[in-house]
Amino acid sequence: MPRFKLTIEYDGTPYCGWQRQANGPSVQAALEEALEKLHAGFIIVRGAGRTDTGVHATGQVIHIDLPRDWPASKLMDALNFHLQPHPVAVVAAEIAAPDFDARFSAKGRHYLYRIIDRRAPLAVEANRAWHVKTRLDVAAMDRAAKRLLGTHDFTTFRSAHCQSKSPLKTLDRLDVTRVGEDLIEVRASARSFLHNQVRSMVGSVKLVGEGKWPEERLTEVLEAKDHTKCGALAPPAGLYLVGVDY
Amino acid sequence: MPRFKLTIEYDGTPYCGWQRQANGPSVQAALEEALEKLHAGFIIVRGAGRTDTGVHATGQVIHIDLPRDWPASKLMDALNFHLQPHPVAVVAAEIAAPDFDARFSAKGRHYLYRIIDRRAPLAVEANRAWHVKTRLDVAAMDRAAKRLLGTHDFTTFRSAHCQSKSPLKTLDRLDVTRVGEDLIEVRASARSFLHNQVRSMVGSVKLVGEGKWPEERLTEVLEAKDHTKCGALAPPAGLYLVGVDY
Repeated sequence: MPRFKLTIEYDGTPYCGWQRQANGPSVQAALEEALEKLHAGFIIVRGAGRTDTGVHATGQVIHIDLPRDWPASKLMDALNFHLQPHPVAVVAAEIAAPDFDARFSAKGRHYLYRIIDRRAPLAVEANRAWHVKTRLDVAAMDRAAKRLLGTHDFTTFRSAHCQSKSPLKTLDRLDVTRVGEDLIEVRASARSFLHNQVRSMVGSVKLVGEGKWPEERLTEVLEAKDHTKCGALAPPAGLYLVGVDY
Repeated sequence: MPRFKLTIEYDGTPYCGWQRQANGPSVQAALEEALEKLHAGFIIVRGAGRTDTGVHATGQVIHIDLPRDWPASKLMDALNFHLQPHPVAVVAAEIAAPDFDARFSAKGRHYLYRIIDRRAPLAVEANRAWHVKTRLDVAAMDRAAKRLLGTHDFTTFRSAHCQSKSPLKTLDRLDVTRVGEDLIEVRASARSFLHNQVRSMVGSVKLVGEGKWPEERLTEVLEAKDHTKCGALAPPAGLYLVGVDY
């Protein structure tokens, strides 16, 4: 029973999210169905992060145990063949240690959030970014974001459905930069995040960029430890799980 | 009858191309239908370039004559409203001189062709780039591309359906650069191009990147003035009309 570590990319648009659900297609189910076409039995896929409906990944990591040995690159090609026509691809594959766990061995998770601030709606980038109609003050957003760095009780930025035992997390990176004319990238890194934490932080930082919140407000709402105090959740289409460290 | 110049962005995936056709949806028809919702009569849309099925644009330019005056930004917002849910957006609008012609006043056209060279199929970038499975030698591609610069008879890189009177064109730019890990950008500029010229040149330059053609072959096939000598046409999904100069 060799264990494999696979890196997965997906367009989250057509899925109810990462996790297998009764009410619609999921990325996990797409992968498990492709694995069933390779092997007679059902093989459980374990992912590093449970992305929500419409959230994308370029660096999701999973582990699987297979009943027989495969050269990793052959496994990758075979899975990609059976994944068609899903917008899900295995971009890297390697044999892992028997105790490797995509979720619990993770030492860092990296997310990218893309905002396009322009008057016109998105066409080429539809479902790939958050469309904000007003020009955002990126320098103010970045300064405000820095107020969230470090170890805090992130209850304010936590969804009501969050299953994490503790609201205490350490945010290692929250950088807001403009890339080109109207694309803004927010890069967030931590060992782990609460449910909806990145989208919730981005939603609040965006209010600073619009001039609706002063920068200090980020510190105030963080310290309030009250979920009703955060800005409206940023939409899922802008969010990408870009990498996991082990 | 004020004349307007509009800059248009679109995801070409669901369209039979720019031009209105009997057999399927076109970007031109989407724009003309949105204009009909603004005005009782039918208004013809003239574009700078006729992009093919599946080809995208971030900077297509059109002109239209409207029966009444509009502040340009209001026109843009109203058209974008009526364009929903098409992946077509007006990204800029201005009043133009009465003799401005999106096609015939154009002094330069700029295309971007995106290639992703990696083993895994495309998921997030599906329909947005050409997937090439082998690692390409970008430096060799760029050197080969430079052999096509200048004024030449481009018959080799011209589709059989091309309506241009002359095969003589002046290619001002053909740059091949790697951007990040596995994205290659080819940037092409000319006053005008023959039908399929960019995709045909990219298809041939890619053969150099794979090591299947020596760089000199580009000069040989150009000088042959024979359409059967060029490499296979690069697929439409990688091509973007990114700008037009006037």
